[in-house]
Parts: sequence; structure tokens; C-alpha cells
Amino acid sequence: MNDLHRELIPEPALRRLPWYLAYVTLLRERGDEYVSSTQISRELKVDASQIAKDLSFLDIRGKTRIGYEVPLLEHKLEEFLGFRRSHRAVVVGAGSLGGALMQDSGLNRYGLNIVAAFDVSREVAGNALNGIPVYPLCELKQRVGQTGATVGIITVPVEHAQATADLLVDAGVKALWNFTPIRLSAPDGVVLTNTSIYAHLAVMYNRMEAGGRKAE
Amino acid sequence: MNDLHRELIPEPALRRLPWYLAYVTLLRERGDEYVSSTQISRELKVDASQIAKDLSFLDIRGKTRIGYEVPLLEHKLEEFLGFRRSHRAVVVGAGSLGGALMQDSGLNRYGLNIVAAFDVSREVAGNALNGIPVYPLCELKQRVGQTGATVGIITVPVEHAQATADLLVDAGVKALWNFTPIRLSAPDGVVLTNTSIYAHLAVMYNRMEAGGRKAE
Repeated sequence: MNDLHRELIPEPALRRLPWYLAYVTLLRERGDEYVSSTQISRELKVDASQIAKDLSFLDIRGKTRIGYEVPLLEHKLEEFLGFRRSHRAVVVGAGSLGGALMQDSGLNRYGLNIVAAFDVSREVAGNALNGIPVYPLCELKQRVGQTGATVGIITVPVEHAQATADLLVDAGVKALWNFTPIRLSAPDGVVLTNTSIYAHLAVMYNRMEAGGRKAE
Repeated sequence: MNDLHRELIPEPALRRLPWYLAYVTLLRERGDEYVSSTQISRELKVDASQIAKDLSFLDIRGKTRIGYEVPLLEHKLEEFLGFRRSHRAVVVGAGSLGGALMQDSGLNRYGLNIVAAFDVSREVAGNALNGIPVYPLCELKQRVGQTGATVGIITVPVEHAQATADLLVDAGVKALWNFTPIRLSAPDGVVLTNTSIYAHLAVMYNRMEAGGRKAE
């Protein structure tokens, strides 16, 4: 049932669920037992009926007047979002951003297990960062095969981004996570997710000039 | 005229402009003189009429059959996107992600000048990273005032995110750039931009399970 639900959830709802998770984790850490959609609504400024609707995609029921059990809601959210399964990933481009991702323990908590990194620089390749080995780029296909990595993280200079994407697809990854500002192409069946922090900057500057409307 | 345009551009168009910029920069670096919207369209898989419409917000005209002058288009895009003006910023939370941002020369190229960082850790405060001083958190208000920083970058643990946002707003920043997974509140007039890489992970996992539809 969960699998079916997972396919049907609209992306805006999917993007709100991690907010609820972050909040519910805070509540669990401070020892709260129950939380209502009204309470989540007040804290996160999302309409309560929207929250109830978003949470209806999960296999969980709240109790009337009491709400959801905090640890159970946290568990169900993590499960639904895929954060409780381990997804093996490789990083291509072990520079400052790639290196930061390799050192970010948060990614591991959210189900991303970086098993290897690749770099063209002879100085970088051969080292390890946070226990993650950095290999020369020419070993990418072989290592992706060996490790069974399904996610390729692209943190190379923009002029090498598409070639890197092609290499990763050829090596068999199922998803590309693109941190460069350029738009990449990938064959059907390969998931392409863009996290361009520079595009977010452009939106932020624009809103600042316009006198402070909210940007998401 | 530009200022008026800047307010009117729809956010989806604004988010596409950095793609064009990244591509046009590549063209300029390899010595190309002209580029047409058809060529951008082929490379970036965006409809050519959409590109022409997006570029109509800029103060630039293409030549029939030839297209846009590459260096001029690059300049106009950078100007329009705010990347040619310097925006002073402070980082709160000089951990792995905050540290990576402080070392990312890309941000500087895109108009973000990180002038100071703050951390609660006594081991971190007092140091400098990439020439950027790290101060104790209690000095935030004073230092923001001294440096005239207008952007506050939030890379603290999630449980301190809202308190950090409140401190930054109180210190006078005009925009908050939130890298934590939780949703923050800010008063009207303060721009709030969220870059939650964990939410992007959730969308990526979901698409992988659904068999590889594209996620943006």
C-alpha cells in the first residue's frame, strides 16, 4: 500500500513532509508524546487541513483531540520519505562542495551512504575523506559496479558536468544529483535532481530588490 | 527600466536564467561569438520560444538569424540576476556545510561576499577559514552592524535554526538563507530562501521508486 501511495503523492506535498519530520524530531527529542496538525500548523505556518491531507499519504492515523504519536509519526515519515533505507552514492568532484557533502553526517541520517568519491586531481585521488576513499576518475565505472551505487552526485566544475553525468549513467547509476548551475540531460528512467544553490541566490537577490517578498 | 522588470519576472523564468548564464559562460570560454535561442534550446532542452520570452526581461536584443552576442548576453544575465553586485553575508554555524560555503569561490562569483561567520563552539570561534573570521555567536549583532551584512546564512543544527533566524533579523539582515530542513518564520519584509538538500533527497528517492521520472 505504501508503495502505491509513494507514487501518487504530489511533489509539493512531498516537499512539505521533510518540514514535518524536522519538527517532529525536535518534539521527540524534547520528550513530547503527541502532536496535532493544529500544533504543526501553528509552528510551521502551513494550513492545518493541508497538513492532515499530506499526512493522509502515510500509513498512520491521528487520535481525535490528541493527535499523532510523536515517535510513530517520526518513524512513518522517515520510512515514507526513504530516509530509513540506505542508498549508496558516489561523489564526482571532491572539491570544497563535494568534500563538504562527504563530511555531512546529516546525509547518512537521511539514507544517503556515500561509498566513494572520484576526482581528476592526482593530489586528491588516492586520499580518503571522512573514511570515504577518493579514486581517479578513470576507475568510476568499475567502482560503481563493485559498490552497487545507485546515486551519482555531481560537484565538478560546470564545464565537466554533462560529461560526468554521461559517465555516471554509463556506469549504471539510477539517479543523478546535480549541484552545478547548468541544466543536464539524462536518458529516460534516470532520475535527475537539481540543487543549484546559485539559482537560489538569484531568486533571493530578486526578492530583496522587490522589498522582501518571501521566496521558497 | 531594469528595476521594474526585475520585479515583474515570474519565479520560474528567474530560475531558468541561471541555466542560460552557465551555458553562455561556457560558450564565451570556448570563444563563441553568437548564440541563438534555438541553440540554447537544443542544449538545455527548454522550448526556444520560452527562452526568447525569458530573455525579453533583459535589456538585450538578438539579431535575426544570428542570435545574441555571447559576452553581452553573459554580462546582461549576470547583471539582471544580481551577480555583478556584491551582497555582504554572514554565516551562522561554521560546521561542515557552513565551512564549505565559506570556501566556495563560486558564491563570490555570484555576488555573495561572506564577510564573517559565527559559531557557539569555543574551538571554532576565534579562527578564520579562507580568510573569513569566525566570531563567538554573542558578537553577531555588533558585527552585522559593523560589516553592513544584509544576508544571514543559517547552517546551524535544526534545533537552533529559528533562534538563529530571530537573532539575524534582530541584527538587521534583509534576507535569510536557510540550509536546515525545518521551515522558519520571518517578519514581513525579510526575504526567506530555503535550500534544504534533504528535501531534495526525499524527492529523488521517491522518483527512483516510481521508476525514474524527472525531478527538478
